Amino acid sequence: MKIVVAYSGGLDTSVLVTWLKEHYNAEIYAYCANVGQEEELEGLEEKAIKTGATECLIDDLCEEFAADYIYPMFQAGAIYEGRYLLGTSIARPCIAKGMVEYARKVGATAIAHGATGKGNDQVRFELSVAALAPDIEIIAPWRMQVFRDKFPGRAQMIAYAAEHNIPVQATAKKSYSMDRNLLHISYESGVLEDPWYDGSTPADRDMYLLTTSPEEAPDQAEYLQLLFEKGNIVGLQVDGIADYAAKVGVSSTGEKDGYTLFTPYGVMKILNFLAGKHGVGRVDIVENRFVGMKSRGIYETPAGTIMFEAHRDLETLVVDREAMLVRDELIPRYSQMVYNGFWFAPEREALQALVTETQKSVTGEVRVKLYKGNVICAGRRSPNSLYSEDIATMEEDPTQAYNQDDATGFIHLNALRLKLQGLSKNV
Amino acid sequence: MKIVVAYSGGLDTSVLVTWLKEHYNAEIYAYCANVGQEEELEGLEEKAIKTGATECLIDDLCEEFAADYIYPMFQAGAIYEGRYLLGTSIARPCIAKGMVEYARKVGATAIAHGATGKGNDQVRFELSVAALAPDIEIIAPWRMQVFRDKFPGRAQMIAYAAEHNIPVQATAKKSYSMDRNLLHISYESGVLEDPWYDGSTPADRDMYLLTTSPEEAPDQAEYLQLLFEKGNIVGLQVDGIADYAAKVGVSSTGEKDGYTLFTPYGVMKILNFLAGKHGVGRVDIVENRFVGMKSRGIYETPAGTIMFEAHRDLETLVVDREAMLVRDELIPRYSQMVYNGFWFAPEREALQALVTETQKSVTGEVRVKLYKGNVICAGRRSPNSLYSEDIATMEEDPTQAYNQDDATGFIHLNALRLKLQGLSKNV
Amino acid sequence: MKIVVAYSGGLDTSVLVTWLKEHYNAEIYAYCANVGQEEELEGLEEKAIKTGATECLIDDLCEEFAADYIYPMFQAGAIYEGRYLLGTSIARPCIAKGMVEYARKVGATAIAHGATGKGNDQVRFELSVAALAPDIEIIAPWRMQVFRDKFPGRAQMIAYAAEHNIPVQATAKKSYSMDRNLLHISYESGVLEDPWYDGSTPADRDMYLLTTSPEEAPDQAEYLQLLFEKGNIVGLQVDGIADYAAKVGVSSTGEKDGYTLFTPYGVMKILNFLAGKHGVGRVDIVENRFVGMKSRGIYETPAGTIMFEAHRDLETLVVDREAMLVRDELIPRYSQMVYNGFWFAPEREALQALVTETQKSVTGEVRVKLYKGNVICAGRRSPNSLYSEDIATMEEDPTQAYNQDDATGFIHLNALRLKLQGLSKNV
Amino acid sequence: MKIVVAYSGGLDTSVLVTWLKEHYNAEIYAYCANVGQEEELEGLEEKAIKTGATECLIDDLCEEFAADYIYPMFQAGAIYEGRYLLGTSIARPCIAKGMVEYARKVGATAIAHGATGKGNDQVRFELSVAALAPDIEIIAPWRMQVFRDKFPGRAQMIAYAAEHNIPVQATAKKSYSMDRNLLHISYESGVLEDPWYDGSTPADRDMYLLTTSPEEAPDQAEYLQLLFEKGNIVGLQVDGIADYAAKVGVSSTGEKDGYTLFTPYGVMKILNFLAGKHGVGRVDIVENRFVGMKSRGIYETPAGTIMFEAHRDLETLVVDREAMLVRDELIPRYSQMVYNGFWFAPEREALQALVTETQKSVTGEVRVKLYKGNVICAGRRSPNSLYSEDIATMEEDPTQAYNQDDATGFIHLNALRLKLQGLSKNV
Repeated sequence: MKIVVAYSGGLDTSVLVTWLKEHYNAEIYAYCANVGQEEELEGLEEKAIKTGATECLIDDLCEEFAADYIYPMFQAGAIYEGRYLLGTSIARPCIAKGMVEYARKVGATAIAHGATGKGNDQVRFELSVAALAPDIEIIAPWRMQVFRDKFPGRAQMIAYAAEHNIPVQATAKKSYSMDRNLLHISYESGVLEDPWYDGSTPADRDMYLLTTSPEEAPDQAEYLQLLFEKGNIVGLQVDGIADYAAKVGVSSTGEKDGYTLFTPYGVMKILNFLAGKHGVGRVDIVENRFVGMKSRGIYETPAGTIMFEAHRDLETLVVDREAMLVRDELIPRYSQMVYNGFWFAPEREALQALVTETQKSVTGEVRVKLYKGNVICAGRRSPNSLYSEDIATMEEDPTQAYNQDDATGFIHLNALRLKLQGLSKNV
Repeated sequence: MKIVVAYSGGLDTSVLVTWLKEHYNAEIYAYCANVGQEEELEGLEEKAIKTGATECLIDDLCEEFAADYIYPMFQAGAIYEGRYLLGTSIARPCIAKGMVEYARKVGATAIAHGATGKGNDQVRFELSVAALAPDIEIIAPWRMQVFRDKFPGRAQMIAYAAEHNIPVQATAKKSYSMDRNLLHISYESGVLEDPWYDGSTPADRDMYLLTTSPEEAPDQAEYLQLLFEKGNIVGLQVDGIADYAAKVGVSSTGEKDGYTLFTPYGVMKILNFLAGKHGVGRVDIVENRFVGMKSRGIYETPAGTIMFEAHRDLETLVVDREAMLVRDELIPRYSQMVYNGFWFAPEREALQALVTETQKSVTGEVRVKLYKGNVICAGRRSPNSLYSEDIATMEEDPTQAYNQDDATGFIHLNALRLKLQGLSKNV
Repeated sequence: MKIVVAYSGGLDTSVLVTWLKEHYNAEIYAYCANVGQEEELEGLEEKAIKTGATECLIDDLCEEFAADYIYPMFQAGAIYEGRYLLGTSIARPCIAKGMVEYARKVGATAIAHGATGKGNDQVRFELSVAALAPDIEIIAPWRMQVFRDKFPGRAQMIAYAAEHNIPVQATAKKSYSMDRNLLHISYESGVLEDPWYDGSTPADRDMYLLTTSPEEAPDQAEYLQLLFEKGNIVGLQVDGIADYAAKVGVSSTGEKDGYTLFTPYGVMKILNFLAGKHGVGRVDIVENRFVGMKSRGIYETPAGTIMFEAHRDLETLVVDREAMLVRDELIPRYSQMVYNGFWFAPEREALQALVTETQKSVTGEVRVKLYKGNVICAGRRSPNSLYSEDIATMEEDPTQAYNQDDATGFIHLNALRLKLQGLSKNV
Repeated sequence: MKIVVAYSGGLDTSVLVTWLKEHYNAEIYAYCANVGQEEELEGLEEKAIKTGATECLIDDLCEEFAADYIYPMFQAGAIYEGRYLLGTSIARPCIAKGMVEYARKVGATAIAHGATGKGNDQVRFELSVAALAPDIEIIAPWRMQVFRDKFPGRAQMIAYAAEHNIPVQATAKKSYSMDRNLLHISYESGVLEDPWYDGSTPADRDMYLLTTSPEEAPDQAEYLQLLFEKGNIVGLQVDGIADYAAKVGVSSTGEKDGYTLFTPYGVMKILNFLAGKHGVGRVDIVENRFVGMKSRGIYETPAGTIMFEAHRDLETLVVDREAMLVRDELIPRYSQMVYNGFWFAPEREALQALVTETQKSVTGEVRVKLYKGNVICAGRRSPNSLYSEDIATMEEDPTQAYNQDDATGFIHLNALRLKLQGLSKNV
């Protein structure tokens, strides 16, 4: 039997590799997706082999994650429960697809992960695998009594690692857990579990890795221009763009209309830097997990916050009122689908088709001002603009494009059913 | 014939009073609703009489506007096109109801207003009147050719006023128009009609009346606690609350659990002051008017921004996931109804019934931090909290309230249809 | 330990009573809800006691089922997946509530049912109990390995019954299963599991208990008038009403405007008879179970079919266009909630509040013609009618209530955004 | 000036041709779309020329109407207000597109139609033209006072025709108006304006042209099989198919799997015949017009009724539960868009993109039984079936594809939020 295991090199997944190998008498294929978590991946293959894996794949999905998952989701304007930009949720189907492909390649019949039985991630992983590879077995040791009996706590894991010569680093347990990728970092559990606590003690203030606090952000605002094509950001215009790109290690793919072009990944790396510098993207929420409970999380989503706001700013200029309304009404559902792990589900694909249709005209520029936690719209323009100063103006209208008398009939007929309702006696 | 005229004492509505009196040979009843526009209302009655009105009513609707219009709308979490807190929209049905009641009292058979034929306000006024009093005639002079011919520009109005001894103040025309009430100020037209222009030239920076700019806001954050009952803010807790109340001229109605209680109007007056001080509540948008065009507006909604954010913060703690989802999906429609003027329409009332049902448990406290344009959630708690640390914790769970093994079956059955779909060959 | 057991007197639930008593060393309280299944309930208490129960309650819920569950659901116009009138689904919360009340009365801490692990009923029962009595334990023996091991088939049950002197009737196993209550009979499984099979072999034709086939229905149509109040049928007018009432054993509660009044239960009994006589109410569908699979069912819903159709006929006359649209858009969700067992969930209650609001004016009369499977609308009228012949007429309009010229402005402004879209070059 | 006029050869549109020519001193291009109205079109060109037209185009749009309008709409499962299959509504954009193309070809700058100012058709025509050709002027004489003054009644039209040598046939005025095309006939106005009147007097019984009454339909049911591809009916299987095709004058385009293939138009012609013969497709409704009033109509939609029902029957077998739910929730909106005339609007196109996505798998066969007004599903099967007897069976499951124990966890986690809600004290 061959098992692909989600592997990070940390204590938990290292123990998993060894335990699964023993318990199932299986060949273990360690799989580590790089979705921008910025962890140390060097030496990981060697470590995995030492831990007992037959093979280890470090799969660089950064570009794919940005282009095929994050970007389409931002086209939809997705936001869960009015607040959460779905940073963790959207990474799971991407990773699951990578694991399935690896499993197919090495001929594995099972996929194992170290997610707990209380969270959303187990669901997201497993629903994704179910959709992509219904025949592949899922192994979730944390939901197996035999595993939980063997590892009631961290101590037993450390002992087991020592006993099996598993190379692990001793790290102090933090007072919270975190999950990081290109789109965000989430902080949960521990002291953060109290929804009345605002995470502002000195110790917790240090936890933020992507953003400075608004208070410590520069006193000087910074202006930034974004170039959109069909709902996606393809280029940036900001003083010092070359330095920023160099600083975050990405290269431009070209120039257009005064914008420096980047891949989706490149765009997001730079936006993460800029937004982070200005304290943009922190959010503190209570959210509803799919497994039926509420939980509390603190998130940093610097690039995502700019992307979300600027996308809406451009849409208002170029998308028709009623098309936008229909899309807006579907955002809560779309977002719940992504949150709950139904990325590869027919209902998400159906909604995405609608979203794609609405994004055909979302091409243009948005100017934003970043200042101490704020992303402030400072202009938008587009060749597809449906805004007409001639028509909208309250000044004299030289084109006579709008005849004010039309409003009379418009109002009369809109009022007709209200009048009939008003005249109805018995209601 | 008796006509009730929406009257403000300015040039336009003063001309209207005189012109309508002449044109219809009618008795004019001037009506001025006080919905918190903070204009000079003293001497207005006298002025109206001088202008030719038979009578003038200054109708203080501030408390009613806050309690019966703004508060229910914020229970719904209304926001138009993802951005606009509907400050102008929600005032119109309130004023229209006041006019209808005045018309009934004085026996008027017509209501006249000075809104233009291009905007939303004409629609909102007239749909409200249609629903409340289908028999009352509406007169909208700006949509009458005879009126427009007589008054092609401002000069003709000034001349007409002089000729008819209408007492008007000479004021310089601003480069934009504004509308103010308890909930917001909107700025439109003129230089603001260019959606690429950010309103940041020195002259335009002065236009903001309710909020300081984030840059000029205090360097020190201020914490504020809000007491909610059934989705409505009923009390405040903040250092210096007595001074703040005095400063804005409102009185407390009592104390509860450390909170100072106020009427909805009182709450909003204080929040406007606090939010304004910290640069909270500015927004710059392109929006879709009901009459079919896009327009550009800049809004200040200081209190509303805090109310909107804090309400959501509490809801996430106390409202069930699926009930909140259903409500959230209806927000865009509800908001469009309010924006388009369908406040007194059966469809808005149907949605409101749903909203009211969801707000039964929205009682509790929210703590927010105001800082340079940001409203940051700094805690929420409630006796109705559905959040359970015991269940949510990723730490050891002493109560065993959650059995991780349940997740296996949960995922399996959620995955079943995805597996069947995946196995289906021909798709 | 005291356990309330859902009990019908049949083999399965009789075995359950005895097995639970043994397995848990518990006192068993047998509970049998009468929701109109028309089974032999006489002697059931004695039988339960003989089977080992401490006590047996036969709980007549017929009136409550009709008034508090079926009627509100029909106000909502509920229909699952465009076809299924939710006959089984809606009975489950009603029965669950009865069981919870019985459990509270006798001090039981657990409730057991005999539903299988594949169906929807287990979910509906258990979600209802969870909402009403979160502390009560649920026992579902068919999901317990120990029970399934003991009773792998029907033979073992019969043997067990014999061994324990459980009084059961030997009945031949049918080629399908059925579930009956006041609202419907469902037929499932066995030969019906093939979705290409139409249930029309002679044997299966006999399975229908509530309706004659359209072919065998009378050649003469029958007219029937229904009196609605706030969306609920309260009276009937049909030739021979007294005889019909006598035949089905219900009594009138009064007379009004030529209608004979009945309780909801009484109305439904008579409508079941009339519709059944005319072959109305059969439906053959493939549906989606909440547990993730599709299944095939054949249903008879005679009264429900008339109720559903006539309700819509009246609504079109008295409910505002946009209020009805909003309600209609929510029907699929409402119906899924009922189907999935979320009757006592906050989201269903929220939608119900909206529905109730829309039903305020649904008072009036509907005339229907029953003929060989068809329910044909033959007229509707109401004091709350929003239909105005004066306005709708294409003939000359003496009242001038509608000014055709208004349509010009109405169309122009509705067209404006389409024109702007059409003029936009780059899309 | 060149004007394209919607022309039928009847009194009204003949008068229109002549009047427009005079009034605008214009060249008139008469346009008559053939969308299956089965009127006498022979000699129409000659008649138009005699009436004063420069040119007359009879545009056969039957195939286009079926393939590009009706079929996509039935993929969406559209039905307005739960009853109306949109027979008239869907023809209007098709005709408008034809008129616009003709206008472009002959260089006309205006389009005129003879629809009244009270109905929906004027809106549908004009919104379609606005979207397709925003620069083209619309002329609607019935909304022009000068025209109405000239033609206050039918008598003046007849006199005008005589005076201008317009060749018109004298026809007795019917007690109702009708509109016919491939999809349906609508009957409105006159005696039908009373919603309590059921159209069943002998005179009105004769009005039905497409369907026999259920009472007069054959006593013998007829079975029919439909072959679907991606949501569209492409083939038929029924005894005597060749005769039926010959009778309605359509030719098969091939054979496949025992089915005779036809174009969409061919399918509909045959289905109209079969359904009509069996009394299928009559409906009597009160509906809400876009212009704000309710109206009453009686419709015959024979083919459409079979298409609508059979499409749903197949969808339940092959479309995922949640994808179908999302689509179903959007049906009321989609239907309103079509009804109101927004076919060429971005919001309809956005929904259509979603619909198309859901129809990818809607391939297979449906068997229906036609009998005295009933369309009864008698089987459905598909290579894409998501229904699995192995999984759904309540019998023993040899494949063990479904583990009943999974339901326990599934229910527990679905119940969790309900339990927490139940435990919450203060609600």
